[in-house]
Amino acid sequence: MNPPHPSSAAAALLPFLLLLPHLLTAAAAPPPRPHPLNPLTPDELTLVSSTLTNSSTLTPPFTIHYVGLDDPDKPAVLSYAYSSPKTPAPPRRALVIARASRQNHRILVDLSTATVVEHVIVPNSVGFPTLTFEEQGEANNLPFGEPRFLESLRRRRLKAGEVVCGSFTVGWYGGGGGPKRRRVVRVMCYYKEGTVNVYMRPIEGLSLTVDLDEMRVIGFLDREVVPVPKAQGTDYREAAQDGPPRPKINPIGLVQPNGPSFTVDQHIISWAGWLFHLSFDARAGAIISLASIYDQQTRERRQVMYRGFISELFVPYMDLTEEWYFRTFLDAGEYGFGLCTFPLQPLRDCPENAVFMDGYIAGQDGTPVLMPNVFCVFERYAGDIMWRHTEALIPNITIREVRPEITLVVRTVSSVGNYDYIVDWEFKQSGSINVKVGLTGLLEVRGTKYTNMGQLTDEEYGILLAENTLGARHDHFVTFHLDLDIDEPPNSFVKTTFQTTRVMYPNKSPRKSYWRVVEKTAKTESEARVKLGSGQGDLLIVNPNKKTKVGNQVGYRLIPGSVTRPLLSVDDYPQIRAAFTNYNVWVTPYNKSEKWAGGLFTDESRGEDTLYTWSQRNRRIENKDIVLWYNLGIHHAPYQEDFPLMPTITDGFELRPTNFFESNPVLNVIPPEPVTWSNCSTAKAITMEWYLTSY
Amino acid sequence: MNPPHPSSAAAALLPFLLLLPHLLTAAAAPPPRPHPLNPLTPDELTLVSSTLTNSSTLTPPFTIHYVGLDDPDKPAVLSYAYSSPKTPAPPRRALVIARASRQNHRILVDLSTATVVEHVIVPNSVGFPTLTFEEQGEANNLPFGEPRFLESLRRRRLKAGEVVCGSFTVGWYGGGGGPKRRRVVRVMCYYKEGTVNVYMRPIEGLSLTVDLDEMRVIGFLDREVVPVPKAQGTDYREAAQDGPPRPKINPIGLVQPNGPSFTVDQHIISWAGWLFHLSFDARAGAIISLASIYDQQTRERRQVMYRGFISELFVPYMDLTEEWYFRTFLDAGEYGFGLCTFPLQPLRDCPENAVFMDGYIAGQDGTPVLMPNVFCVFERYAGDIMWRHTEALIPNITIREVRPEITLVVRTVSSVGNYDYIVDWEFKQSGSINVKVGLTGLLEVRGTKYTNMGQLTDEEYGILLAENTLGARHDHFVTFHLDLDIDEPPNSFVKTTFQTTRVMYPNKSPRKSYWRVVEKTAKTESEARVKLGSGQGDLLIVNPNKKTKVGNQVGYRLIPGSVTRPLLSVDDYPQIRAAFTNYNVWVTPYNKSEKWAGGLFTDESRGEDTLYTWSQRNRRIENKDIVLWYNLGIHHAPYQEDFPLMPTITDGFELRPTNFFESNPVLNVIPPEPVTWSNCSTAKAITMEWYLTSY
Repeated sequence: MNPPHPSSAAAALLPFLLLLPHLLTAAAAPPPRPHPLNPLTPDELTLVSSTLTNSSTLTPPFTIHYVGLDDPDKPAVLSYAYSSPKTPAPPRRALVIARASRQNHRILVDLSTATVVEHVIVPNSVGFPTLTFEEQGEANNLPFGEPRFLESLRRRRLKAGEVVCGSFTVGWYGGGGGPKRRRVVRVMCYYKEGTVNVYMRPIEGLSLTVDLDEMRVIGFLDREVVPVPKAQGTDYREAAQDGPPRPKINPIGLVQPNGPSFTVDQHIISWAGWLFHLSFDARAGAIISLASIYDQQTRERRQVMYRGFISELFVPYMDLTEEWYFRTFLDAGEYGFGLCTFPLQPLRDCPENAVFMDGYIAGQDGTPVLMPNVFCVFERYAGDIMWRHTEALIPNITIREVRPEITLVVRTVSSVGNYDYIVDWEFKQSGSINVKVGLTGLLEVRGTKYTNMGQLTDEEYGILLAENTLGARHDHFVTFHLDLDIDEPPNSFVKTTFQTTRVMYPNKSPRKSYWRVVEKTAKTESEARVKLGSGQGDLLIVNPNKKTKVGNQVGYRLIPGSVTRPLLSVDDYPQIRAAFTNYNVWVTPYNKSEKWAGGLFTDESRGEDTLYTWSQRNRRIENKDIVLWYNLGIHHAPYQEDFPLMPTITDGFELRPTNFFESNPVLNVIPPEPVTWSNCSTAKAITMEWYLTSY
Repeated sequence: MNPPHPSSAAAALLPFLLLLPHLLTAAAAPPPRPHPLNPLTPDELTLVSSTLTNSSTLTPPFTIHYVGLDDPDKPAVLSYAYSSPKTPAPPRRALVIARASRQNHRILVDLSTATVVEHVIVPNSVGFPTLTFEEQGEANNLPFGEPRFLESLRRRRLKAGEVVCGSFTVGWYGGGGGPKRRRVVRVMCYYKEGTVNVYMRPIEGLSLTVDLDEMRVIGFLDREVVPVPKAQGTDYREAAQDGPPRPKINPIGLVQPNGPSFTVDQHIISWAGWLFHLSFDARAGAIISLASIYDQQTRERRQVMYRGFISELFVPYMDLTEEWYFRTFLDAGEYGFGLCTFPLQPLRDCPENAVFMDGYIAGQDGTPVLMPNVFCVFERYAGDIMWRHTEALIPNITIREVRPEITLVVRTVSSVGNYDYIVDWEFKQSGSINVKVGLTGLLEVRGTKYTNMGQLTDEEYGILLAENTLGARHDHFVTFHLDLDIDEPPNSFVKTTFQTTRVMYPNKSPRKSYWRVVEKTAKTESEARVKLGSGQGDLLIVNPNKKTKVGNQVGYRLIPGSVTRPLLSVDDYPQIRAAFTNYNVWVTPYNKSEKWAGGLFTDESRGEDTLYTWSQRNRRIENKDIVLWYNLGIHHAPYQEDFPLMPTITDGFELRPTNFFESNPVLNVIPPEPVTWSNCSTAKAITMEWYLTSY
């Protein structure tokens, strides 16, 4: 969490805005038939903005909190993508979430007719939209016009010019259902003197409450004076490092002298039999759609995943003090996981052979904003082995066959305030999809008077990472929406158990036990829920209407990463809002409206519109078009190595073909020729070209 | 499991033997002072052999089953490695395991005096030594001299010339404590006609029992005739692939134009502050010793791990049929995990920038045998990010700092018959040690009359992977011996729990719950045992006598991989022999003799000398020199994608510094310069040079 400062936001937007005219002309001649899932172009964003202004839908002043493609009907998209001849593309519509006259507005704009086709006012009791950069920036500036705040800084001997503030969503802690409900944030501040690592220098005990609609301070609290942790050793910039330099690593690179093996056609990426659509969304970030793989054995293109994206993140902190208890963020719904996606740095965030792609969002006033280099796409060779065997059993021959593992990675990095989330969608030639989430960036630390662990009590909710610096414990739950269509819908969800079985008749075998696989197809949503670590076997999405030649159901299986279960009480307010994390795995029937696990209006939500509540209907899911939801979780108890900046922690999961292919689909992979250095001029040119296009 | 055919073994040895004279001269001028942990040189192996022949220790004929370095006393090694001035190296002794006059012999040879200093006869009731390649080869040939066997082949219309056989260890199924105990294997055969993938063509229902000491058939069983699965589609060689070729991947490489950043001095490898000793052992394969890291903050070299290696592997199959129930292999003790290490293939098994190293073993007659390219060492850049942050909160500046993740990998591949185990020890600049085990190669499949799943019953112990081909379910447990010395011994083992805590006083906080960390130091071995998935928090090895400046105990923590618990009944014979897998984590006080989790004499062992039995003494482990044991486990229920050869499945674990450093130790990492193509001629030369030295 935590937003950019307004002026920096402005600063950030400036270059993009300058670029825009050129881009608009570039975009002025769009392809005859845009793919129905393409994100809104700058033209379309402008069209949405003007449509709203021209229509009397919203009484000014209004703020636009989200503009994105409204999902076209799935059957229409499927037939557009897979039927031949192609059926016409379904109509393109934009979904707009706006705030006007203290109300939530949900608006659909038809892009072909430039008309508002739907306008719904959603009661404030449900929750509020994603915060905009601009309003966070304004809120972060308010303290500096607040005499009590400036007095508090003086009391602490802090220079106002060295203070920066951030807006913290406040969650929900009971009641508040009435129409008088206010859209507020708590504003808390940091001291940057001597460092850029402001998160390591919190000014504790001091907070303001801001009404975002009125954009004014409605509450002020100076509870206690706590020492501000010192700046020394917190600055992470290369230039700020002193002391002896570390042993240097020789240049090392991932290179492709002849260029990459994948093609990008608008938003369609094609590689090694894989075909998928990549788009950018202000709320979700990367969205992978229509992932299909060409089956060489059956010589057909086969559907795997209709859509995959990060639906929500839940980041609750385990600290009950006044300025901390409410820090139970739903990052995607409250701050916009896509909105917080910043440009990737060539040769640092992505290797030499990476190709970069841009995204667009709408500003608070509806203006299209370019987000450069939000994606990088590259082929990954990590020195790993796809498969191998050395055979020495056969007389007079020794066989050694080895295939290196080369994969395709789509990467985004979202910096939600202090935290940086590295999200990789990795496609393997074997048909697997690996999803990895890397957590790095800066911890939220709490200032304290203590300088040694000996002084601490249990109640301090953390350990000392440095003098006056407590590392706050917290969780990260990343909720993935995985709409798998294994050989097209309908599909079923099958849970297997590896069940220890006693040998009943001693004369039958000298063995006393073995394990067998017990399969159970989930008939309803409740039967599908899984808490990991409870001894489950494999978790499969199968197509019950298709079998392999020898009669196995075709499917994919979910291979989870680390086993992390939620630890908050189910009746605790944050957990009620984030009840979608009560289980690691959920399966629901496909429903166009069930997209955001934490609800469409997430800020200050009360858990009324979540994956949990949808799932309470306990619908039938057997042999239906179903969606798999996976909660990747990390309990983070910080240690000193996380100070002042965390080395990346990575977790992930895999979707792996499971009796999907008749046999190993990569047996006939041709090992790539070794890199030759003969044509480095080409290579150089290519590398430089990518490097330049990325600026 | 499963050995090479004798003639192929001979074929395999031939080139090495030819090489030997040259190597011996090369080795003839050894460094003045070999490191006490260096593996035995060819000279030393020859010396051991001649010492045994000259001494009357063993009455010929005898077979040598193991020769390796006898562990010098740990205190002597520690003081040699870390005290200054260096203390003299402790005496070098060789441990020999031999078989003569139907008895187990355990012999210590002093290498300076070329004398036998210890000779123990170990009763057969305990178990038998690792099988030699040569005797397995002989056993695999015996069927062809057995009329009943040849008659059985005729009945099945199989050509004897197309049959290859393998030796299977038989485990233990009760009784057998007496002196009359025989050292036997079951020999079973495959049909290679039309393929090199013999494991996909088992000849079921037919088996022989061979006494390895007498080297003769003592049992023959032709139980039933089962169709041999067909050869079609099983050959995995590149040349054997037909059908349309897959989309080609452009050349891609991991390159270092200026060469690698690590140095190799004999067996000491130095990289990015890491220093460790790498040696090769016929039983364990790779052994990492004396791993220490230079702490830039304290400017001292700090001990991390005294020794790490794979102590045992347990691979039980879940099939009760006569030819299968006993397949419950202890690969390291029965077949030699190091013995099964085959040469790595440059540019396939390891990337362009890899450096290769050799190993030596002793043949059955004591002759030194070169194992070329058993190791590759390379710097790994997978396009991953070590740490990063984009900062947008501060007015008028946007900060983006990113460091690519570059690690050092030590790789071996052990092909224990059908399975290939890829073992990576990966060292990170952050101080982490990542260990990864990749499983690939060939499944053990069972021939069956069935051609469709519809025909199967539960009792078939598997699913059809192809017509007449059942994929047998099985487990892999890989037992790691991890002798961590965090800032030198003594250390303690601390288990933490993330404990949900209710807020007792509603007025205290609007929250109802949070989680806190509850620490427990294990006082005894029984308190240290862990079954994963039972909700544990972090697992730490700490130095209770050292604290950071702010008072945290310095330590490392074990971050496990997938959660896999043993499923066999604890009273089942295979599980009694492998009771060391009853828990995922064990901690024992250091004991020189407690090295092999399955016992020194593993073949036909009865579980009397295992990690489990040692640990029953329930010794005190608090503030002692302790050893961490980790069982990495995989339940393998095969699917059709595993046929006829498995794509690599990977699991692993991490040892991560935990309040070991005062702060993030990689904050001052200098990002490597991008690969420039200006000096490709150099690069080319280097690459070619490595390529050539590897042959």
